[in-house]
Amino acid sequence: MDDKKYIGIDIGGMSIKGGVVDGGGRILYKSAITIEPCKPDSEILSDIAGLVKSLLEATGLDKEDVAGIGVGCPGSVYDEKGVVRYSCNINFRNTPMAEMLSKLSGIPNVKISNDANCAALGETLFGAGNGAQNSVMITLGTGVGTGIVVNGKLLTGNCSAGAEGGHITINMGGRMCGCGKKGHFEAYASATGLIAQTSEACAKHPDSLLAKIAAQDGINGKTVFIAAKQGDKVAKAVIKRYLNYVGTGLVIFANIFFPEVIIVGGGISNEGDTIIKPLSKYVAKNIYGAEYNPPIKVVAATLRNDAGVVGAAALCFDD
Amino acid sequence: MDDKKYIGIDIGGMSIKGGVVDGGGRILYKSAITIEPCKPDSEILSDIAGLVKSLLEATGLDKEDVAGIGVGCPGSVYDEKGVVRYSCNINFRNTPMAEMLSKLSGIPNVKISNDANCAALGETLFGAGNGAQNSVMITLGTGVGTGIVVNGKLLTGNCSAGAEGGHITINMGGRMCGCGKKGHFEAYASATGLIAQTSEACAKHPDSLLAKIAAQDGINGKTVFIAAKQGDKVAKAVIKRYLNYVGTGLVIFANIFFPEVIIVGGGISNEGDTIIKPLSKYVAKNIYGAEYNPPIKVVAATLRNDAGVVGAAALCFDD
Repeated sequence: MDDKKYIGIDIGGMSIKGGVVDGGGRILYKSAITIEPCKPDSEILSDIAGLVKSLLEATGLDKEDVAGIGVGCPGSVYDEKGVVRYSCNINFRNTPMAEMLSKLSGIPNVKISNDANCAALGETLFGAGNGAQNSVMITLGTGVGTGIVVNGKLLTGNCSAGAEGGHITINMGGRMCGCGKKGHFEAYASATGLIAQTSEACAKHPDSLLAKIAAQDGINGKTVFIAAKQGDKVAKAVIKRYLNYVGTGLVIFANIFFPEVIIVGGGISNEGDTIIKPLSKYVAKNIYGAEYNPPIKVVAATLRNDAGVVGAAALCFDD
Repeated sequence: MDDKKYIGIDIGGMSIKGGVVDGGGRILYKSAITIEPCKPDSEILSDIAGLVKSLLEATGLDKEDVAGIGVGCPGSVYDEKGVVRYSCNINFRNTPMAEMLSKLSGIPNVKISNDANCAALGETLFGAGNGAQNSVMITLGTGVGTGIVVNGKLLTGNCSAGAEGGHITINMGGRMCGCGKKGHFEAYASATGLIAQTSEACAKHPDSLLAKIAAQDGINGKTVFIAAKQGDKVAKAVIKRYLNYVGTGLVIFANIFFPEVIIVGGGISNEGDTIIKPLSKYVAKNIYGAEYNPPIKVVAATLRNDAGVVGAAALCFDD
């Protein structure tokens, strides 16, 4: 651990979070501003430079005290070039973010990466990963995101185009994925996939408690867990099958990377041990060569909203 | 490139190959000895030390001229510890190979890894990969082996237990794998898998040319390609489906690693463009985000029997 100070920025759909982070991954001070995604990219970056300035003022730091700024940004980010190629809902198109933010802030060292990658790095080094050097983080949200850490560094692939683990095939010819191909991990394991599986079970078992709750409150990623907690067998069967899908994906990553830890994040990870315990058992049972190797820990993410800021700052560690 | 000299050793089921290799991956001199797999491990290692000595004598090098010895060994190898945990057909059981060979040879720096990993490293840096820093090598043999290079180094996972890419699920609940689990890549894409698919097609189409050739000559990994070259439609359909299975696995690795190159090795890669062209097309069509990124090259292995020796030597590069 060093005693340098870093700034982590986490760009989200609703706000831009920023924090001053020390070399041990602790947030010393944090703040946030509203994002105006339709502004020209130069103006959004001016806003971020303003956030950086306010963080420095609040903590009494000079620019020279900051070893680097790390930024996590949604969309397609070319880490090595410091360029955001595009971002679905924000006005970034081939934006040379690192160069621009460096000029605007007066802090030379700026690193950027995809926001999910930053969250994975933060959770791995300072959250649920508890300092692991090798991890895979699977985020079960609207889609399925994957962030992979190898020897303490993000694995991003050539042109930063890798780590697209939501779009690996687990079931050839199976359920349609949002990307237009069939049988992908995301089609089964995302909250969207779980909602579809819940909906199908309701149609098939209209007299189940699950169907009644769904009819009354609508279906979201929690519905099936609420019904299962009340003892509904149909809901329990949906969860069991869903966890087999998620587990199948986790084992693929386990066999390829044999990480110290697999971190499960995203909205569905809020179910805690209800999903973590069976997933852990599934991985232990299905991983190749289990008898010769230590077990792989499967844990829920713990840093929540802070993961992005901490992980973004960590992009600049070891520089 | 440096002007140091290295020794690469490739332990196989029939022989132990050795070579003096320069920093550019060129084999300056090579030789081989017969392996006696039932001997105690200490005697096998004495034989290897003898091979090293003969390589030095033949090239006029002193021990001090050698920057390191790299060894590729079949089975479960714990790279960081320099220990061979076990090897199916050779008498290695928790053998501290690096330490023993270092003592026996008088050359302090000894590195070891799995033989498939070494072949992947050799092919990537000095063979079909043409110096790529990021690659995935898929070996289609009796099983399916995978070797992964990230930033010029082998990815081996915690306890060197990763890179078991033959045992990732591509088709849940599908074809039985040799490991006892269903739907794995190896069950479909190995020569063993292809032979099973050929055999099933023969049973279903007893009047096909494929069935006739099979009845006359028996079935091996080449049978279906021989029949297809003579225009047999049944054989062509088997190949098409088989390549979809192989392609599905390649795309999984492509989406996770986005390597510069995917190298296809093993007996089936001898079919050359017959399989490489369609696989290349399959990857380009099915990879995620193809429109935003450079294409991933899919190529056949080129170093053949030398890949293991060159890759083993390369374990010691950059030391």
